[in-house]
Amino acid sequence: MARIVMKFGGTSMAGTERIRRVANIVRKQAAGGNQVVVVVSAMAGETDRLVNFCREANPLYDPAEYDVVVASGEQVTSGLLALTLQALGCKARSWLGWQLPIHTIEAHAKARVESIESDDLVASLERGEIAVVPGFQGVSDDGRVTTLGRGGSDTSAVAVAAAIGADRCDIYTDVDGVYTTDPRIVAKARKLKAVTYEEMLELASVGAKVLQTRSVGLAMKEGVPVQVLSSFVGDDAIPADDLPGTLIVSDEEMEKIDMERQLVTGIAHDKNEAKIILTRVPDKPGAVAHIFGPLADASINVDMIIQNVGRDKGETDVTFTVPQTDLARAQALLEDKREDIGFNRIITDSHIAKISVVGVGMKSHAGVAATMFKALSDRGINIQAISTSEIKVSVMIDEDETELAVRVLHTAYGLDAEDEAA
Amino acid sequence: MARIVMKFGGTSMAGTERIRRVANIVRKQAAGGNQVVVVVSAMAGETDRLVNFCREANPLYDPAEYDVVVASGEQVTSGLLALTLQALGCKARSWLGWQLPIHTIEAHAKARVESIESDDLVASLERGEIAVVPGFQGVSDDGRVTTLGRGGSDTSAVAVAAAIGADRCDIYTDVDGVYTTDPRIVAKARKLKAVTYEEMLELASVGAKVLQTRSVGLAMKEGVPVQVLSSFVGDDAIPADDLPGTLIVSDEEMEKIDMERQLVTGIAHDKNEAKIILTRVPDKPGAVAHIFGPLADASINVDMIIQNVGRDKGETDVTFTVPQTDLARAQALLEDKREDIGFNRIITDSHIAKISVVGVGMKSHAGVAATMFKALSDRGINIQAISTSEIKVSVMIDEDETELAVRVLHTAYGLDAEDEAA
Repeated sequence: MARIVMKFGGTSMAGTERIRRVANIVRKQAAGGNQVVVVVSAMAGETDRLVNFCREANPLYDPAEYDVVVASGEQVTSGLLALTLQALGCKARSWLGWQLPIHTIEAHAKARVESIESDDLVASLERGEIAVVPGFQGVSDDGRVTTLGRGGSDTSAVAVAAAIGADRCDIYTDVDGVYTTDPRIVAKARKLKAVTYEEMLELASVGAKVLQTRSVGLAMKEGVPVQVLSSFVGDDAIPADDLPGTLIVSDEEMEKIDMERQLVTGIAHDKNEAKIILTRVPDKPGAVAHIFGPLADASINVDMIIQNVGRDKGETDVTFTVPQTDLARAQALLEDKREDIGFNRIITDSHIAKISVVGVGMKSHAGVAATMFKALSDRGINIQAISTSEIKVSVMIDEDETELAVRVLHTAYGLDAEDEAA
Repeated sequence: MARIVMKFGGTSMAGTERIRRVANIVRKQAAGGNQVVVVVSAMAGETDRLVNFCREANPLYDPAEYDVVVASGEQVTSGLLALTLQALGCKARSWLGWQLPIHTIEAHAKARVESIESDDLVASLERGEIAVVPGFQGVSDDGRVTTLGRGGSDTSAVAVAAAIGADRCDIYTDVDGVYTTDPRIVAKARKLKAVTYEEMLELASVGAKVLQTRSVGLAMKEGVPVQVLSSFVGDDAIPADDLPGTLIVSDEEMEKIDMERQLVTGIAHDKNEAKIILTRVPDKPGAVAHIFGPLADASINVDMIIQNVGRDKGETDVTFTVPQTDLARAQALLEDKREDIGFNRIITDSHIAKISVVGVGMKSHAGVAATMFKALSDRGINIQAISTSEIKVSVMIDEDETELAVRVLHTAYGLDAEDEAA
C-alpha cells in the first residue's frame, strides 16, 4: 500500500465527461489498495472567465475579493469529482481549503502555503475514503480565502503530499512527461525517465512549462518524489506499478535510477524575455545599484546581465533581460530614474530568445559550455549574452534562430532519440 | 440612520454590467448614512448550470457534494459585488456562509438556518463597510457547506436581517412589488402598498411567486419588515425615503399603513396542481389514513381534499390535489397501496387550476366566499372543489377558465385600478 497524491490540471477537468475519465484513473489507484488524495484544478477556461469578471468589476481589484471569486472554480471541480467517484462506487469527499485548513500567508492572489492540518484528511484516508482537495486555494490567518497564483494547484498538490507524508505526488497534465526538449521543435526529443529537482527547476524556469516552478522548489525542500504523467493516454496505459511518466527526484535517487546519465539532460528555450540596453552609464561604484534597485523594488525579475565597455572612457553599456510582460513597466521606471542612473539612451528588443542546456552531470564535467558555443558558432548563430549556473548554461540569441539552435544543441549533446526508440 | 438588508436576485446579478447597476443602488442607500448588508443570488442561469453538472456527474448525487458545487455561484457574485462597490469608492467586503458563520442544520440541499453569528458583521458595518453576503449558503455543525434549497437567498436575507436587528429587509427582484393579481392577466391589477405576512404567505403559496414562502414565514416569526421592490426601475426611482415597492408587515403595522383596507387584498392562481380521484373507497374509519399516510411519508404535499358519497352505500369517492410534479410518483404510490386502500379506479387530471381570494379583512367579515361563488357561477364557471382558511378562499376550476375567473373576481371584489390611477 502506498499513500499517493494525484493532481489533475484544468484540461483534464474540463467538463463532466473528462472528469469521469479522471475518476476512472483515480479509482484504479485506489483499487490497488492505495490511499489517495486528489488535487484538482478548475475546468480549463474557468479561471480566465472568473478573472475577467473581476477585471470588469474593478480593474484595480482588491486581491482579497478576487480570491473569493476565482477560488470558486476549484470548489466546483472538487465537488464534481467527489460526486463522479461516488457514481463509480468509491467512497469520496471533498475538503475545501478552509476546511482542512490549508493555512497560507495573507498575500492574496499570490499566497504561499504555510502549513496544512492533515489529521482529518489522514483519518478520512484511513476510513477508506478518497479525498478530493481543490488546488490553488487556502485560507489566511484572518479566515479569508486566499489563492496561490496561476498554476498554484501544482504547489497545492506537493504541499498536501508533504503534509500527509505521501510516497509520491503524481501530476497529471496534458503532456506525458518531461522531454529532453520541446518535441514540437525536435521530433527526436526523448521523454526522460527521471530528472532531479534542480534540473526541473532550470527546465521549468527557462520554458519547459510542465510544472509550476514553485511546486518543484517545494518538492525539493520537502523531499517529495514527483511524477509528471498524462491523463490522456487511456486508462490501460497507467498500471499502478509501471507508470510511464517522468520522475522528479533528489540527486541521490537519481543515481539509483540512472547510473549512466548524460552530461546534459535537456535543452530549454524561452521567448518571453526582452532585452534592455542602457548606453553610456557612468562606470563608477553604485551605478549598477541605481538600475537594479528600483527594478527589484517593483518586483521586476532581471535575468541575464552584461556590462560592455562603452566608447568613451568612464562609461559603459549595461544590457540585461526582463520578462516581456514587464518591459513597458521597466522602461517607464528607468526613464523616471534617468537622472539617478545617468544613462544616455534606452534600447529595447523583445525579439530575443534564451536557450539553456541543463544537466546535473555538468557539475563534474568541464567542456559543456565550450561544446555549446562551438555548435552554435558552426551554424553561424550569434551569441548576444551568456549566463551560467552550476547545472545550466544559457545564451541569448536572435528569436528567429530559436528552433535551429535547439535542434543543433539537441544533436550536439547526443540527446536525439535513436530511430528504433523513436 | 437605519440598518438595512438589501437582497438582489439572479436576474439583477446576471453579469458585471447588471452588478454595477446593483452597486449603484446599494451605494445610494449607504450614502444616505445607512448601515447596509447586501445578500446576493448567483447570476441568473448559473445555479442551473451547476446543478446540471452535478446531475451529469452523478444522477443520484450526494447532497453534501452538490452543496459544495452549487454554493459557488453565490460566492462568485458576492466577491464581484464587493469589487464593484470598491470601484465606486465604497468600503465593502464579502462574508461567505462559513465565515460569519451562518449555521444551518445538516440537511444538505434543503438546510434551514439555525443561527447567524453577527458580531463580526455588525463590527464591519460600524466601521462603515458595506457587507456582502452570498445567499442560499451556510455551514453545518460538522463544518460542511450547506444550501437552503432553490430560492433560498430570500430566506438568507431575512435571517441576516433578523440576526443584526435590521430595520428593514428590502428584496429587489424582477417585479416591482406585490400586485392585487397577476398583471399579465388583469391589466387593471394594482400594486399593493402593503400586505401582511399572512396574506403574503397565502399569495406566495398559491402562485404569486415573488418571494420564497419560507422567507415570509421567517420574517413573520422574527418580525422583520420586508419590502419587495424592483432593481430595474432606474436609480432615481429609488430614493432612500420614498421606496415604491410593497411592504410586508405584521397585522398591527398594517393597521397604521392602511386604515381603510379592502376585504380582499389579492387574487392568486396556481396551474401547477393536479387532481386525483380515487373511486369507490370503502367508507370506514381509517380508510383515508391509508391514502394520505403514504403520500405524507413520501413528502407529497396534498392540498384540497373532498369526499363524495359514491354510487353504492358504504363507498365514497375521494378527490384531492397534489403538485403536478409529484403526480406520477403519487399515482405509482397509490397503485402500490391499492389493496390497503381498497379503491376501484384512479382518475387523474392535471388540467385544473386553483383560484384563491386572499385578505386579512375577511377574518371579520362574512360573505366573502358567497361573493366568489356567485361571481363565478354568473359566468358559468364550474367549481370542482373548495377549501378555505381564515384569510383565504380557494376553488378548483377547469384550467382553461383560469384567466376569466381571475378577471371576474378582481372586478367583483373592487380591486380594479381606476383609469386615473392605472
